[in-house]
Amino acid sequence: MSVSAVPTLPAVAEPLPVLGSDVRVPLVTGGEVGYAALDYGASAPALRRVWDDVAAYAPYYGSVHRGAGYLSQLSTELFENSRAEVGRFLGCRPADQVVFTRSTTDSLNLLAGVLPSGTRVFVFESEHHAALLPWERRADVEVTYLTAPRSRREAVEVLERALAGREPHGPALVCVTGASNVTGELWPVRELAAAAHAHGARIVLDAAQLAPHHPVDIAELDVDWVAFSGHKLYAPFGAGVLAGRADWLRAAEPYLAGGGASRTVARGADGRVSVVWHEGTARHEAGSPNVIGAYAIAAACRALTEAGFERLVAREQRLLSALRAGLAEVPGVKVLSLFGEDAPRVGVLSFVVEGWNSSHLAAALSAEYGIGVRDGLFCAHPLVRTLLGTDGRAPGECGAPEGEREQAPLNAVRVSFGAGTPDEHVERFVRAVEELVAHGARWTYRTEDGRCVPDTSGA
Amino acid sequence: MSVSAVPTLPAVAEPLPVLGSDVRVPLVTGGEVGYAALDYGASAPALRRVWDDVAAYAPYYGSVHRGAGYLSQLSTELFENSRAEVGRFLGCRPADQVVFTRSTTDSLNLLAGVLPSGTRVFVFESEHHAALLPWERRADVEVTYLTAPRSRREAVEVLERALAGREPHGPALVCVTGASNVTGELWPVRELAAAAHAHGARIVLDAAQLAPHHPVDIAELDVDWVAFSGHKLYAPFGAGVLAGRADWLRAAEPYLAGGGASRTVARGADGRVSVVWHEGTARHEAGSPNVIGAYAIAAACRALTEAGFERLVAREQRLLSALRAGLAEVPGVKVLSLFGEDAPRVGVLSFVVEGWNSSHLAAALSAEYGIGVRDGLFCAHPLVRTLLGTDGRAPGECGAPEGEREQAPLNAVRVSFGAGTPDEHVERFVRAVEELVAHGARWTYRTEDGRCVPDTSGA
Repeated sequence: MSVSAVPTLPAVAEPLPVLGSDVRVPLVTGGEVGYAALDYGASAPALRRVWDDVAAYAPYYGSVHRGAGYLSQLSTELFENSRAEVGRFLGCRPADQVVFTRSTTDSLNLLAGVLPSGTRVFVFESEHHAALLPWERRADVEVTYLTAPRSRREAVEVLERALAGREPHGPALVCVTGASNVTGELWPVRELAAAAHAHGARIVLDAAQLAPHHPVDIAELDVDWVAFSGHKLYAPFGAGVLAGRADWLRAAEPYLAGGGASRTVARGADGRVSVVWHEGTARHEAGSPNVIGAYAIAAACRALTEAGFERLVAREQRLLSALRAGLAEVPGVKVLSLFGEDAPRVGVLSFVVEGWNSSHLAAALSAEYGIGVRDGLFCAHPLVRTLLGTDGRAPGECGAPEGEREQAPLNAVRVSFGAGTPDEHVERFVRAVEELVAHGARWTYRTEDGRCVPDTSGA
Repeated sequence: MSVSAVPTLPAVAEPLPVLGSDVRVPLVTGGEVGYAALDYGASAPALRRVWDDVAAYAPYYGSVHRGAGYLSQLSTELFENSRAEVGRFLGCRPADQVVFTRSTTDSLNLLAGVLPSGTRVFVFESEHHAALLPWERRADVEVTYLTAPRSRREAVEVLERALAGREPHGPALVCVTGASNVTGELWPVRELAAAAHAHGARIVLDAAQLAPHHPVDIAELDVDWVAFSGHKLYAPFGAGVLAGRADWLRAAEPYLAGGGASRTVARGADGRVSVVWHEGTARHEAGSPNVIGAYAIAAACRALTEAGFERLVAREQRLLSALRAGLAEVPGVKVLSLFGEDAPRVGVLSFVVEGWNSSHLAAALSAEYGIGVRDGLFCAHPLVRTLLGTDGRAPGECGAPEGEREQAPLNAVRVSFGAGTPDEHVERFVRAVEELVAHGARWTYRTEDGRCVPDTSGA
């Protein structure tokens, strides 16, 4: 079996220590192997530093805001310092607000809720569902879906045309991803922001896939808001962030109604209840804040900064080059791309293999090689269907390779990695794809509850 | 100085181990002391068992649902098992859904969002803001605020009258707390549920303060939904729960728009985007789930059950009796109560002291005794103002005891505890109040940024 095509990756820097790096998993073919987590695009492992910081704080955890005790005051300070730390990490402008949410999905839903009535939203069909779907829930907001561009330049042109065609008055918002969760390709955020602002629109950056892989500077990119998730930024404790301009946030109804967001509540003589809401970040953080989640994100920001984010980017790019070079040698592999070979990208890559059901391939990578990837449409159905040319068809059964060979794949495999990924994981992945394509899976698989699993009925 | 009035508490059971039980904090008067966390009603410390379970799982954390890797499958199973464990803890009926949210506030906002159009909501003015405020945000929902009753029997009568007066057709919902976050008093949930159902209304139980102190059985209480928070149930990892009937949840628009909640998304020939949403719990859990938060809640449910929840209740009741007996001996202390001396209650108690600004008292308890309580209106403004008889007046400056003595207190002190509280904390608290009332604070305090803090300017 040839593995000679796999390039050797010289180590320019070690990966950052992450939890789970020593976890071993069983193989269906016997024995066990160190788990290769290559699904960072969904959820990244916690950085060891993040875990250690959380563990050091946990005994000091206390109620925030109105608590009079020492640990309450410490926890309140730590929570607000975490907010400031995230603001620094994102290069926030002085007047920007950093609101802690539960995830990017939550952040974008929050932003959708604060849009002024009549806002026109412009969004590419190629976005993740979290960026695609929240806007149209507002009955008083009109959404224009833009066809996925086939180059970075076309992205700007498409947006320019759409914005030029709009009624020039009234609020408008552009929502765009920083890095595609399917192709990993970088979108021309600065240029799109300039186009938006030139036409009087604002822009929100979905940085869920960008922030873990690349420094994001809100002022330098000149975007109005940035949203990202802790669980993709090595801080999987249920928190996310929406950071940016305060005015629309301050003018809108609170995201949730409840304590924390309410400054005063009184029942009047008419029997009704009246509320005065807070105006700062508390307005959209009703309920007890997720202090540990917020602190974990701040700890991750600190860890990435202190490790030298640019060095991590360089290392990831080297892994990505090796991955792409390795896959290019495997017959039948097609890497999904909107912007072509030369587009800049992060460590997220989706592909299909001729004659393979992608779920079958993903299952074999897990069961026979201990590699965790993802198969499916990655919550970006319009984009993946466009890239596969399969609009309207449903994925087939994983255990039917004969039939599969007759038609194009209906879903894809995504491999994604980051600051904690050792070279060996990428090397093993390339070797595994090569072996599977050359020799087929060594085990048989079947579909169970919609998932492709090793068939152990004969075992 | 007399401390003879403080009863000695014989230990029938040790407290459950919690994080932070060995944390020592400095005293403004010199030296340091073990921190007495008596603000469980806001946020309880993590049970050691919960922390250990989370720590054991953390290296195995992986993306849930579509991940093909071993850790993704393990994490998906653990997440769904956590859902089942919470369902068992709450005594859920077979068709009930357990939705993971971020908190009780989030759970009740979710429920407000799924109410059928035209629903009439009935809620006592004495509720926490999280239970009071979400309903009126729906323009197509009518809210009736019920005056705070002065007995458990009156609570049922007030609700009966209100429901009898409603237009008998159309959906209706009653929202009621299980235990007041101000007085700790138990509400007659079973009787209120019977009244609601007799009049064709549904009922949601705000169990934020009940679930940590008392077993909750959704079927036995015959309530339609239960909401509670992890951070009050010894699992402070950013998750909460809404459990109960599936029909309204299934019929409504998803809580958040995004991945996870969407089954299929397609862009049509008309350029619009169409969505088919999931029908199960995923419908209202868009975005990557907070797996660690959900698992932590399940771990807490397990730990409380295995420790013998009834034994914990008995122990807490003994602490509560000692606390109440101790405070009863202190001149000028007035415990806030809706239902009177004999009403059943949990380990949550609010009080004021004649001649004392409550913020001043809370600050002295912290700075001179290392005791963490809470001062304010506890996100239940109408109730606390009613109990204090202070509608319309604002709290004064904490550092003005002379002026304070002239008027009734404008806010209160809340002391709350639970499964991790050692006898010594309650004993120290009673002794501290006794000493402060008898001899005054040993330090001077001033108001800074709206908080009462030790004046160290002369130090």
